[in-house]
Amino acid sequence: MSRFFSEKYAELKPYVPGEQPQGRQFIKLNTNENAFPPHPAVTEAAAEAAKSLHLYSDPECRILREKLAERYSLTPEEFVIVNGSDEVLNFAFMAFCDRHIPVIFPDITYGFYPVFAKLNNIPYTEIPLQEDLTIRVRDYLQAAATIFIANPNAPTGIALKREQIEEILQANPYNVVVVDEAYVDFGAESCIPLVREYDNLLVTQTFSKARSLAGGRLGYGVGNPELIRDLETIRYSTNPYNLDSMTLAAGAACLDHDDYNRQNCRTIMRTRENARRELADLGFEVTDSKANFLFARHPGIGGEELYLRLKERGILIRHFSVERIKDYNRISVGTEEQMEALVAAIKEILNA
Amino acid sequence: MSRFFSEKYAELKPYVPGEQPQGRQFIKLNTNENAFPPHPAVTEAAAEAAKSLHLYSDPECRILREKLAERYSLTPEEFVIVNGSDEVLNFAFMAFCDRHIPVIFPDITYGFYPVFAKLNNIPYTEIPLQEDLTIRVRDYLQAAATIFIANPNAPTGIALKREQIEEILQANPYNVVVVDEAYVDFGAESCIPLVREYDNLLVTQTFSKARSLAGGRLGYGVGNPELIRDLETIRYSTNPYNLDSMTLAAGAACLDHDDYNRQNCRTIMRTRENARRELADLGFEVTDSKANFLFARHPGIGGEELYLRLKERGILIRHFSVERIKDYNRISVGTEEQMEALVAAIKEILNA
Repeated sequence: MSRFFSEKYAELKPYVPGEQPQGRQFIKLNTNENAFPPHPAVTEAAAEAAKSLHLYSDPECRILREKLAERYSLTPEEFVIVNGSDEVLNFAFMAFCDRHIPVIFPDITYGFYPVFAKLNNIPYTEIPLQEDLTIRVRDYLQAAATIFIANPNAPTGIALKREQIEEILQANPYNVVVVDEAYVDFGAESCIPLVREYDNLLVTQTFSKARSLAGGRLGYGVGNPELIRDLETIRYSTNPYNLDSMTLAAGAACLDHDDYNRQNCRTIMRTRENARRELADLGFEVTDSKANFLFARHPGIGGEELYLRLKERGILIRHFSVERIKDYNRISVGTEEQMEALVAAIKEILNA
Repeated sequence: MSRFFSEKYAELKPYVPGEQPQGRQFIKLNTNENAFPPHPAVTEAAAEAAKSLHLYSDPECRILREKLAERYSLTPEEFVIVNGSDEVLNFAFMAFCDRHIPVIFPDITYGFYPVFAKLNNIPYTEIPLQEDLTIRVRDYLQAAATIFIANPNAPTGIALKREQIEEILQANPYNVVVVDEAYVDFGAESCIPLVREYDNLLVTQTFSKARSLAGGRLGYGVGNPELIRDLETIRYSTNPYNLDSMTLAAGAACLDHDDYNRQNCRTIMRTRENARRELADLGFEVTDSKANFLFARHPGIGGEELYLRLKERGILIRHFSVERIKDYNRISVGTEEQMEALVAAIKEILNA
């Protein structure tokens, strides 16, 4: 910390992203990247956009918002486009929380929420998940706080049903409920169909997972036009040109080929279920993940040890040094071949 | 504003970027885009990166920081990479200002500074430029505040000499001086050679202007490693994956061909001087701009009127409805052909 750093950030501990090794080639099952590259039309559209990079991108992201509106049968005014969904999550912490409007979220969830809360000096309470790592809906009724729920939750992968989220929305008419649907397309129910009904609902989604654009940095928020306008006020007060023209073009082309993305999601879900069975056969306890990752622990080996042993063998998974879940690891669902290599390596480790 | 929007932003007025018309083809001289596209190698590098968008970009931006370090004879630890230099400016407002550390900047300067100050709830004072629109160095000595200076200044284009900035740095050892060098490569002196000498200096630069990457959204901050680490703390607490892999690749290729960029800057400077002479011949008063734009007023026609008349004729320039400079317009320096079209249109308007 320099002698100039504002005291208000003395306690700030930044988010730690998963390792992105640059040298050795790992089987990377640690950051929930999609096992499949984007559709070739996406690459082509980005390459075409790269030819006129001397011109600014469209800060209003008009084409992309129109395509999203078409895709979800809504209007462009119900979408805000961001540089990865982390950005819209931060905007929501800024816009809908403050010293007087605290925030609540589960104790085990996306690790960035407490960072956003601290960054923005917002009082927050972590609501413990139940013993089985599920969210108890009752804990989120009449909360008198802005609510952040990742659905499916991370890193457990466990999803609430849409009607459960609806119960939370109805019980909190004076507060915004942010539903972070980064992983929703791998088997959970989206709340986007509810945005017209609940003016306190903000859904956030990303192109990073189901749409194979992690390296493109593209996300969006969906909500009623007034909520979206608040987020636009924040966006135009921080970084109006937050999206580059290649990413905007890639995103638009990606939506033109959303069937391809859906097909990939189905493949990944099949691979996930196969891997789940294999891990269960090896004695793992595996949560009912509806995401493109599995969350598992084994009675015979600690979470960190398994992570380290696999890393030695060239396979990266994600371990969180968090008390309640330190026995677990989060394992991204890669290709069938990658998952076979994972299972083979785990067998070796368990038999050693 | 929705009923959920935090009261702390009740007074927030977002920044208004220059028009980016999507329909009609204008001669666009309103957002200071580079008149030349990036080097073909930049386009190729971005297109190549677009092939593996399903993988996350490197949040540490290692390759780009190494190339910048090489380019400026510094180390990678002296650079932070951002999604356009607006992002690092906001980070600097967050990191180096607060309720107790106010900020000062000129009354006529980049219009985003007061927005950042309001967004972050930082008390600020606007120091009036002198009558001739220059910055008086004396006003910035012993400021007891964080100082933001755009050099060259916007929208005047007038630059301070490096030794003048050095005087400000020496007189403010307890405060950070941010020198925003978005336009420095068109004829002003950069303060990057001073970062080893002054630990209170942060220089911000962008690839948008001199390097023809406005649509790529790429900027950086340069300073001593402790200052940079503070900014990284903010970056990792807001959006660690703020750069996509296409932009990172484009930026690296752009630095490999920096001679091409410098050549373009020289061409633009020549065009600027030609256009300046032509405008002066038509009776305009033109500031001594060291940027890729001219700032000019005419005794015979108001700034807004000239802007509107040119727009009717398919030429966009930028007018600011700000009392002190409402007679002026900011005119980006395009190609020789574009500037000839501009001068011809102005002649028509003045003779009408």
